Amino acid sequence: MVNGKLLERIKKTVAEQAVKDNLEEGMVVGVGSGSTIIYAINMMGQMNRELGGLDIVCIPTSHQSSQLITQNKLKLGSLTEYPELDIVIDGVDEIDSHLNAIKGGGGCLLQEKIVASNTNNFIVVLDYKKRSFNLGTNWKNGVPIEIHPIAFKPLMTKFIQLGGKPTLRQGIKKLGPVITDNGNFIVDVNFGLIENPESLNAKLKAIPGVLETGFFIQMISTAYIGEESGKITIEKKKRN
Amino acid sequence: MVNGKLLERIKKTVAEQAVKDNLEEGMVVGVGSGSTIIYAINMMGQMNRELGGLDIVCIPTSHQSSQLITQNKLKLGSLTEYPELDIVIDGVDEIDSHLNAIKGGGGCLLQEKIVASNTNNFIVVLDYKKRSFNLGTNWKNGVPIEIHPIAFKPLMTKFIQLGGKPTLRQGIKKLGPVITDNGNFIVDVNFGLIENPESLNAKLKAIPGVLETGFFIQMISTAYIGEESGKITIEKKKRN
Amino acid sequence: MVNGKLLERIKKTVAEQAVKDNLEEGMVVGVGSGSTIIYAINMMGQMNRELGGLDIVCIPTSHQSSQLITQNKLKLGSLTEYPELDIVIDGVDEIDSHLNAIKGGGGCLLQEKIVASNTNNFIVVLDYKKRSFNLGTNWKNGVPIEIHPIAFKPLMTKFIQLGGKPTLRQGIKKLGPVITDNGNFIVDVNFGLIENPESLNAKLKAIPGVLETGFFIQMISTAYIGEESGKITIEKKKRN
Amino acid sequence: MVNGKLLERIKKTVAEQAVKDNLEEGMVVGVGSGSTIIYAINMMGQMNRELGGLDIVCIPTSHQSSQLITQNKLKLGSLTEYPELDIVIDGVDEIDSHLNAIKGGGGCLLQEKIVASNTNNFIVVLDYKKRSFNLGTNWKNGVPIEIHPIAFKPLMTKFIQLGGKPTLRQGIKKLGPVITDNGNFIVDVNFGLIENPESLNAKLKAIPGVLETGFFIQMISTAYIGEESGKITIEKKKRN
Repeated sequence: MVNGKLLERIKKTVAEQAVKDNLEEGMVVGVGSGSTIIYAINMMGQMNRELGGLDIVCIPTSHQSSQLITQNKLKLGSLTEYPELDIVIDGVDEIDSHLNAIKGGGGCLLQEKIVASNTNNFIVVLDYKKRSFNLGTNWKNGVPIEIHPIAFKPLMTKFIQLGGKPTLRQGIKKLGPVITDNGNFIVDVNFGLIENPESLNAKLKAIPGVLETGFFIQMISTAYIGEESGKITIEKKKRN
Repeated sequence: MVNGKLLERIKKTVAEQAVKDNLEEGMVVGVGSGSTIIYAINMMGQMNRELGGLDIVCIPTSHQSSQLITQNKLKLGSLTEYPELDIVIDGVDEIDSHLNAIKGGGGCLLQEKIVASNTNNFIVVLDYKKRSFNLGTNWKNGVPIEIHPIAFKPLMTKFIQLGGKPTLRQGIKKLGPVITDNGNFIVDVNFGLIENPESLNAKLKAIPGVLETGFFIQMISTAYIGEESGKITIEKKKRN
Repeated sequence: MVNGKLLERIKKTVAEQAVKDNLEEGMVVGVGSGSTIIYAINMMGQMNRELGGLDIVCIPTSHQSSQLITQNKLKLGSLTEYPELDIVIDGVDEIDSHLNAIKGGGGCLLQEKIVASNTNNFIVVLDYKKRSFNLGTNWKNGVPIEIHPIAFKPLMTKFIQLGGKPTLRQGIKKLGPVITDNGNFIVDVNFGLIENPESLNAKLKAIPGVLETGFFIQMISTAYIGEESGKITIEKKKRN
Repeated sequence: MVNGKLLERIKKTVAEQAVKDNLEEGMVVGVGSGSTIIYAINMMGQMNRELGGLDIVCIPTSHQSSQLITQNKLKLGSLTEYPELDIVIDGVDEIDSHLNAIKGGGGCLLQEKIVASNTNNFIVVLDYKKRSFNLGTNWKNGVPIEIHPIAFKPLMTKFIQLGGKPTLRQGIKKLGPVITDNGNFIVDVNFGLIENPESLNAKLKAIPGVLETGFFIQMISTAYIGEESGKITIEKKKRN
């Protein structure tokens, strides 16, 4: 069992390696959200300073990501200007053996999923603790689901009918429910071990009021996994 | 070809008949949006005045609907208080021979679909001009799709790839795009004649950034159709 | 110095007393947000159960407040239906000797201020720790200010120019800034001791992008203050 | 009386002249919204193409403005990246003899006012029909006021108490009220002839739920006015 400091070093190493391996001048880069991705943005900021100006455009996935891009003096863009992205780098909450993932612990899943759906090269960076054979093994907080606020009550029932234990995510620095960057609620639904995330995702998305789920199915091209040993494992999506 | 005045009379007759046939004291009633539904709300308001207080609760589907309910002194409720609705009455833009519909010409599809998904008795009222064998026959404005504003540009491309002609709906009393009651954009996508709306709907809903489509598939229980002759046709969903 | 348990008892006592003294059948009641106000709502819920139905309508000031009203089976209303309120009961973060207050620690100031501005009888409940001679004495977290997200950066500078130390409030259960129920940011601006809140409030409100401040100036009619001794002090606004 | 075509030529001329006189390489430029400003953006787009890349950053004031900037391949920025603007160019609905203005006919006043408040060089372009001695003379649609949706009903009363005739702006391409780019309502309040806009503005801004007014008081540095004769009058703010 590694301690917190070592885990941070693993996260930093893997995020930086993914940037070094994949970032090229001239690229339009989707930039995820979360604690691991901070290391990736800072790495880009450092390259930007050292090179006296990195010729990349960064598309954010959240207010957090937007502010980090700006703080690092990187060029901020939008999907309206750049609808196709060369790469997207993001974290995950958990990834399974088929490179399907759960995301949204930080509440940014809707924008993250929109951005990730506009590249052919979606790269995720994570530490070994977030890797499972099946989703729901290590990530016990439930699948984050962004919902329309008016639908909150009936949706709780529908999530139970699908076998989940739903919790409306509550704010800590604000009263009442967490509000996403899009003005919506997040419900964290614990489905236990999830053997078929694709099917469950389709059922969830068919429910009116479900604006997006935290399932990222067959979207990830490459996963950089920081191992306990300090080494990095790189897994790539199998070609169909 | 009927004139505008006659068409309004047909819409009024059919909306009022649906209310008379289906509304009972003690009910929780979802109230749609649109020009036909105004007649239904006004009918409820009239019953409320005549009976000296109608014991129903109305769940709105838009700011418009909410304001009409309040103006008619009917009791306003929410899905949070009343997650299960006895009936929902709404209009449609077009309905096909399987009682599948396109809605959203007035931009309220997301909330309308959420409300309609919480009843077993979804009743629609329409005039005969809105009935087609296939969707896309009479309704030429395209399928309204509510999208996240940041995804606008790449989604236009994806809608074209699915065979549609998309138009970002523009405001008239405001500059730039129409903003929905939920703060989003509407894209009207013309797919021509739609033979399999269920399959097209599933493809659209799988795209991140598509928050909801205007397809209402296998949701309608009963359609009240005002015929050119003045008669009313009642069609019911077939039991499976 | 009282312990946490005793403080909770003080909060409970004062909230319940304010309800008993002021609530009457037939009233339209604005219901605030926050930890003290929970006791007031629960008290109303208890009266509702004991009386087999309390004939009041509750107007919420936040998602939290709305959910608590519904959980207590109290009748939920809106300013659209009931634009004039008989009483509003809310908490404060700090109150000064002129019954001016700072609110917004829980992020609900905009809706709270709207609701409170539509009654002639705005009652606040608080424990003695929230009473100061001048605002800024006990409440050290800064004046919460709700701002438009796009204006965040230039506003930070303007708040400094007005003598404040601004902090963009960050989420804990979500990445990036806290988002209010209205989709905006909160900046907590520490102005130190505030001798003239009225003047400072006017300066802040004049800045485009400031949507509302946490200053409640000359709005409070009656303050119920739970003393350390267990007694309750009632202070009333001086007539002009 | 000029015809529509001539008026368009006047608007085009004045917008282009303001750009030629004021735009310099390296500038951060706030770009307004509206029908006159389209000519200014297109002029910048033309310069951009002719010069093979204009070194300016454009800060938008609306979705409309953002899309026009992008269509013209101009560089899009934000106040978060560029909190101080060299110039802002915008239109008005009416301007008085003290260079105070009413804006918001297109519903973008909140963002326009935020952007305009972050420059020392706020330039407006208009045709002679929008110039009055007093505000409210030629512009008869009322002062646009952006409000929080929940406050709609009580605010209507308060606007009447201030001597106005308020109308909730209704959508045409959507049912119910117009929703702004910020998710709010617009009320157009007709105050007749307005002799003291500064005082009226302060009273309006003091009302909770009023998020911003369409009054732009002492903000304009320079007005370019296209006269009926085809000439351009340039008026500058008097130094205090």
